[in-house]
Amino acid sequence: MTITAEQLVEQLQSLLGADHARSGGDLTAWEEDWRQLAKGKALAVVSPASTAEVAAVVQACLAAKESGLNVSIVPQGGNTGLVLGGTPDASGLQVVVSLKRMQAVRAFDKQNLSMTVEAGCILQNLQNLAAEQGLLFPLSLAAEGSCVIGGNLATNAGGTQVVRYGNTRDLCLGIEMVNAKGEIWNGLSGLRKNNTGYDLRHLMIGSEGTLGIITAATLKLYPQPAATTCAWLAVDTLDHAVELLALAQQQLASGLTGFEAMEQDALKLVEKHMPHMRMPIDASTGAAFILLEYSDDESEDRARARLEGLLEAAFEAGLLTDGAVAQNLDQAQKMWDIREHITLAQAAEGLHLKHDISVPSSSIPAFVRKAKEELAKVLPDARVINFGHLGDGNLHFNVQAPEGANPREFVDTCQQTAEQAIYDVVASFGGSFSAEHGVGRLKRHDLAHYKDPVALGMMRAIKGALDPLNLFNPHALLPDA
Amino acid sequence: MTITAEQLVEQLQSLLGADHARSGGDLTAWEEDWRQLAKGKALAVVSPASTAEVAAVVQACLAAKESGLNVSIVPQGGNTGLVLGGTPDASGLQVVVSLKRMQAVRAFDKQNLSMTVEAGCILQNLQNLAAEQGLLFPLSLAAEGSCVIGGNLATNAGGTQVVRYGNTRDLCLGIEMVNAKGEIWNGLSGLRKNNTGYDLRHLMIGSEGTLGIITAATLKLYPQPAATTCAWLAVDTLDHAVELLALAQQQLASGLTGFEAMEQDALKLVEKHMPHMRMPIDASTGAAFILLEYSDDESEDRARARLEGLLEAAFEAGLLTDGAVAQNLDQAQKMWDIREHITLAQAAEGLHLKHDISVPSSSIPAFVRKAKEELAKVLPDARVINFGHLGDGNLHFNVQAPEGANPREFVDTCQQTAEQAIYDVVASFGGSFSAEHGVGRLKRHDLAHYKDPVALGMMRAIKGALDPLNLFNPHALLPDA
Repeated sequence: MTITAEQLVEQLQSLLGADHARSGGDLTAWEEDWRQLAKGKALAVVSPASTAEVAAVVQACLAAKESGLNVSIVPQGGNTGLVLGGTPDASGLQVVVSLKRMQAVRAFDKQNLSMTVEAGCILQNLQNLAAEQGLLFPLSLAAEGSCVIGGNLATNAGGTQVVRYGNTRDLCLGIEMVNAKGEIWNGLSGLRKNNTGYDLRHLMIGSEGTLGIITAATLKLYPQPAATTCAWLAVDTLDHAVELLALAQQQLASGLTGFEAMEQDALKLVEKHMPHMRMPIDASTGAAFILLEYSDDESEDRARARLEGLLEAAFEAGLLTDGAVAQNLDQAQKMWDIREHITLAQAAEGLHLKHDISVPSSSIPAFVRKAKEELAKVLPDARVINFGHLGDGNLHFNVQAPEGANPREFVDTCQQTAEQAIYDVVASFGGSFSAEHGVGRLKRHDLAHYKDPVALGMMRAIKGALDPLNLFNPHALLPDA
Repeated sequence: MTITAEQLVEQLQSLLGADHARSGGDLTAWEEDWRQLAKGKALAVVSPASTAEVAAVVQACLAAKESGLNVSIVPQGGNTGLVLGGTPDASGLQVVVSLKRMQAVRAFDKQNLSMTVEAGCILQNLQNLAAEQGLLFPLSLAAEGSCVIGGNLATNAGGTQVVRYGNTRDLCLGIEMVNAKGEIWNGLSGLRKNNTGYDLRHLMIGSEGTLGIITAATLKLYPQPAATTCAWLAVDTLDHAVELLALAQQQLASGLTGFEAMEQDALKLVEKHMPHMRMPIDASTGAAFILLEYSDDESEDRARARLEGLLEAAFEAGLLTDGAVAQNLDQAQKMWDIREHITLAQAAEGLHLKHDISVPSSSIPAFVRKAKEELAKVLPDARVINFGHLGDGNLHFNVQAPEGANPREFVDTCQQTAEQAIYDVVASFGGSFSAEHGVGRLKRHDLAHYKDPVALGMMRAIKGALDPLNLFNPHALLPDA
């Protein structure tokens, strides 16, 4: 006999207590993504406090689904995603499983350079925890004050330190998860080497809640650098920016911990909306600007000397037109602030289109030229706001409405046109239409269009094998067949 | 109607030419593993020259299998594996697909720090290719003169530089493969970031030829260090060795590129069988010895100064009883030679048992004590020859027959007893019974016994989904259900 939605909610409430299994009332905080792109309607929002409770929730939902109720589960972390991967649709038949109550630090192994933490730990808290022990957890991104590690893992988050430390997957030694049978797999591990079968950890990381729920992870730690310093550099072409990147990688090696690029128009937008922010170099004087971060494992003096050595070589090679070195941590922080305010300046300018793309870094200049050219053919007055993690070949190639146009109208009518123009160029360079944000519900049609069909077929086979009833996040990531 | 074995061989010969699809005659080079543990009987050994030819071979075998012939495919690289993952069984019904003719370098992108190469490229050739361009491909292991990158990827090979650069999977940006439908997936990519669905690359890497055939890969390159230097250090306990590791990681950070440990008995065996090799420090004077490699991104002088700084601090902390620093590259090479001769000395001493285990590095001392204790209970006179990649928590905890005993008899009668004693202790420390060698046909029973059953269930589901007819390497990795 079919379990009804009401019966399932009652069951979830009896498992977790009514406070932690809510249905009805104002659930906006879980039903709407933070960018307010879409508000769904959840059957319930549940907040388990342990892995066993997560498993019990999955088992209850699975039993209901097997009985005929068309229920599904949307795992949610800090709800800071950008692609609608963690919020429910409007059906009223999805159970949001929030991991935010699972915040325990289960182990901290200083000698092994690892820590085991639960999925609901806020990223910034983990950074601080490592720092208190004189160590570094290098994952760093704009949402770090509210995103949680479970979400970082489910989406394989990137951020600003990828050029040195890799993406979230590269920082994870092992995971604990609940699969679609409601079974717990304890794959937590402080091991650096373990060749005993398929790497389920890497399969789960980046699967956006469609194959299981990550409940805990063992994470890599690094020694804290002795000193970190920054420079703000003007270049007259992106070709020079890419040559500078190669030079920096050669000279600074693993000391190169950040390499962000911003085209002039992106900084002009910051100047317009945040006039109090002082540019280290007049934004009118360069086609693009680089925020370069160097971390030294020895001393402040050496950090400065090494950075200055690089800049000298870069000036000599004709790669730079101007440059400013941060004289202290405060100045370095201000440089990062400008970089991070581009997103806010874009928001202040009005609704716009975000494109989180990647190509091999060597192709960046040619890609940008071609993408602007193609975009201009179809949307001649649209404004490209281009910036991003050049060191990883990852650009936020965003598009703002023409000067004076209505932003909402522009977004509504031009989104598809812009995406197709840009993503076609991305594809022609062997690039990705989603470098670090993921696919979620927002970019499923892009996946259908741009993903290699053989890869898509294998992805579908894996989903069908591990989640045959499509219990986990059925409307995210994989396009409908 | 069933395609006969003879018909399949004819078909393969017409696809590749008789020279490249051999059946009958002496095929020992492909049928026997290099350690001569087992010699199988292949239906055919085929050597495709291109990805299209690999796909055609898979399609032919698939059609034969679908018609009722119980054929299967064993992908083979350099045939240097240690666990019988790349050689056929005795059935005469397996087609060995050797990748060794696919040796093209398809692209070398210096600016993107990547190269795209075919599966049959010999590892050492790739190291040399990178070096000629002033770059580093850091994968390094004993078999590098004959192993090929396809096999390194299929087994996620480790080696001596893992402490700094990670395992093979960490050095791979993308792969091209042929799946069990005979389809080609071109997932070659110079991208550092690409969040568009399940990470098929990481699923394939380490799957030991059971999910598909890797035909090419895009690999990460690094700047060459400016200088590399080594020290040979004596410690009186493994506890001190692990404390030294932590100190080295703190002081040298990413400059620590090697951290090998060898217990006294391992070096005594080298002294016995290779009396011409000169130990940097009398092996009688320490319980264990560390070969520490440091790479500097600036200069030879700084390399020496940083290494000496570390040793000073380690002596002060009472971690070292003696130490020798290589005065030149030749001395450094001699230190590595001793380390690498342990395996040969073991072979010279006679047949023995190999255990390639890992635990968190912080647990190494307690693990070694406990494992020796448990082994002594069941095999009181067996000799432990313990050495390995301590920086990765990976030990080759090998066992030699008692002094004077018949080695073959010892191996035949005591293998299971030794394995169980040691692997049970490994499991109690959350460790792995196969850190870097893989599972193959040799350790399937260990996988059945020690792998978490939930993980094993998910692995089986994935295998069933991607290779429903069990076409690829059916007797390797996954235990029979």
